[in-house]
Amino acid sequence: MTQVASDPTGLHRVLDEPAVLPQAAQRLDTRAELWPDEVRIRVERLNLDAASFRQLERTHEGDGSAVRDEVLAIVAARGKMQNPETGSGGMLVGTVEAVGESSPLGLKVGDRVATLVSLTLTPLVIEDGLARWDGRSEQVPCDGYAVLFGRSIAAVIPDDLAPELSLAVMDVCGAPALTARIVRQYDAPTVAVIGGAGKSGSLSLAAARDAGAAQVLGVVPHQAEADLLTGAGIADHVVIADARDPIALRDAVTRAAGGPADVTVVCVDVPGCEGGAILSTAERGTVIFFSMATSFSAAALGAEGLAADVTMLVGNGYVPGHAAYALELLRAHDGVRSLFEGRARG
Amino acid sequence: MTQVASDPTGLHRVLDEPAVLPQAAQRLDTRAELWPDEVRIRVERLNLDAASFRQLERTHEGDGSAVRDEVLAIVAARGKMQNPETGSGGMLVGTVEAVGESSPLGLKVGDRVATLVSLTLTPLVIEDGLARWDGRSEQVPCDGYAVLFGRSIAAVIPDDLAPELSLAVMDVCGAPALTARIVRQYDAPTVAVIGGAGKSGSLSLAAARDAGAAQVLGVVPHQAEADLLTGAGIADHVVIADARDPIALRDAVTRAAGGPADVTVVCVDVPGCEGGAILSTAERGTVIFFSMATSFSAAALGAEGLAADVTMLVGNGYVPGHAAYALELLRAHDGVRSLFEGRARG
Repeated sequence: MTQVASDPTGLHRVLDEPAVLPQAAQRLDTRAELWPDEVRIRVERLNLDAASFRQLERTHEGDGSAVRDEVLAIVAARGKMQNPETGSGGMLVGTVEAVGESSPLGLKVGDRVATLVSLTLTPLVIEDGLARWDGRSEQVPCDGYAVLFGRSIAAVIPDDLAPELSLAVMDVCGAPALTARIVRQYDAPTVAVIGGAGKSGSLSLAAARDAGAAQVLGVVPHQAEADLLTGAGIADHVVIADARDPIALRDAVTRAAGGPADVTVVCVDVPGCEGGAILSTAERGTVIFFSMATSFSAAALGAEGLAADVTMLVGNGYVPGHAAYALELLRAHDGVRSLFEGRARG
Repeated sequence: MTQVASDPTGLHRVLDEPAVLPQAAQRLDTRAELWPDEVRIRVERLNLDAASFRQLERTHEGDGSAVRDEVLAIVAARGKMQNPETGSGGMLVGTVEAVGESSPLGLKVGDRVATLVSLTLTPLVIEDGLARWDGRSEQVPCDGYAVLFGRSIAAVIPDDLAPELSLAVMDVCGAPALTARIVRQYDAPTVAVIGGAGKSGSLSLAAARDAGAAQVLGVVPHQAEADLLTGAGIADHVVIADARDPIALRDAVTRAAGGPADVTVVCVDVPGCEGGAILSTAERGTVIFFSMATSFSAAALGAEGLAADVTMLVGNGYVPGHAAYALELLRAHDGVRSLFEGRARG
């Protein structure tokens, strides 16, 4: 047994010298033996971050077995799934197989859970070579184990929803919770969600309305998504624009909403949306960046270069109660549910 | 004369296809001829962004002439000074040499100005090969010209301060203005400034006190900086910690301040400070990231991984009135002025 005491942040499993937090680490200790405050999960499925999966897909030109080999190599080398290019990971679902005697998480052996902390800081061992995955979808069937720390967050999967659906909702549950909090700071605001037909986007639209937005607007890249979002009935306006084209995005948002948005929520996983989001937002408005493809310097310098007095938030994936809130929104809005179920089938 | 109409954002000078905003562009049109809403500046000095300059210095192992050659190559290729690695630029000082007939900036020929928009979106031509620069300092004597757009921001350099001092203050003037705005949202908060002895850091400390902070704390990397900051008398507590070591930073801040900070301001130009800043901040507190070395994904995933309910802001370099406010703080605080003058000499 080790001599090192555990830290709720997982610091005791960091192998880098000098020590950094698990998320920043090159390599984690993946031993199966638990520290007293840890929990071990038997993994059933990984859900890769969309930006990460797309980067892998692009790099290997859609060759699924090359994508699979790279994921295996990353996890073997780092002891966690963290795409070195995008810095992002994803989440997982599995069953609790061991609980340390002083774990504060309230889980018991046999609970079926989804982790709400990123794979980028979760010790992970893959034991089946991902043999059941074709490398062509971000949903990865997997046998292996993962470790949760004292301060990790995991949610028991509810009985009334299909597990894949719960997992997909929990994966993006930070977005609606933070959107609702920010929308409440304004008086009957206009809210624009870039990528409104996606998972985090549709939940954010529902959250914005729930939190008192006067009008909610969803931006989508093409007609098929526009039809989906219009059919879901969760946006007052659905507009088609390329979010990477700042002038086109600004013009589309202001025309549909009768002016710029008070709150703009960026939920698309493509780089280069910072300028358009800033230009679409009113003075003293707020842009919330949830996309992992966001560039810090593009946002900071973009706003400065445009002399735009907007508040720009790094989308924090953690807000207390976020998983329960997102599941509630899904249950309350058939349109959100249909978008999620449509994507799962697609 | 061109057929393209000008846009206040400078879009008409972007050579990329499809068009992006000037800051995101690979290449700008640097023709000396002005569109009607533009202003041409005769450049006297460039002030490279600190993160950019350090990256160049590291890459070329301190070889000044190699650093100079790379800056010349970047500006020749892109028509602007934007470090491809850091994405950042800097600012410039010069004299107005031509004003378009419909420029809204209120400048006249002969005004000595500093640009408050980034070099990353400012068309720039260097005409002297940077012959007077040894490549060893971020202050670059330069002859050439630059172009301002309708929405660019430039400030006339005040008469009562040395031009180098005004320039150094204006370069970081977004930090104190945004810090003051956020500090006012809390009731007598504790404010920690990481990199408190630096330019943006010392102004942010002064701004925090000015805006009603109950206690202000400056974090510095070693004893020499601690002595400087203590001597300046602008912080209630001066603590030494490596900001890249999250646990050390958290422990140093909470020990000195009697608990975590309500507002943490990150002003150091080194990567890897996200985790420590998050851990040093109280629940429902705010972290403001001003460093261009900030990683968006490290911040987003770090907070999520630590289950930290903190608001994280991308430090927007533009807040109305920012230059005047920063100059006022400098005039009012001898300690801030002494730190700036000490750095200029060093």
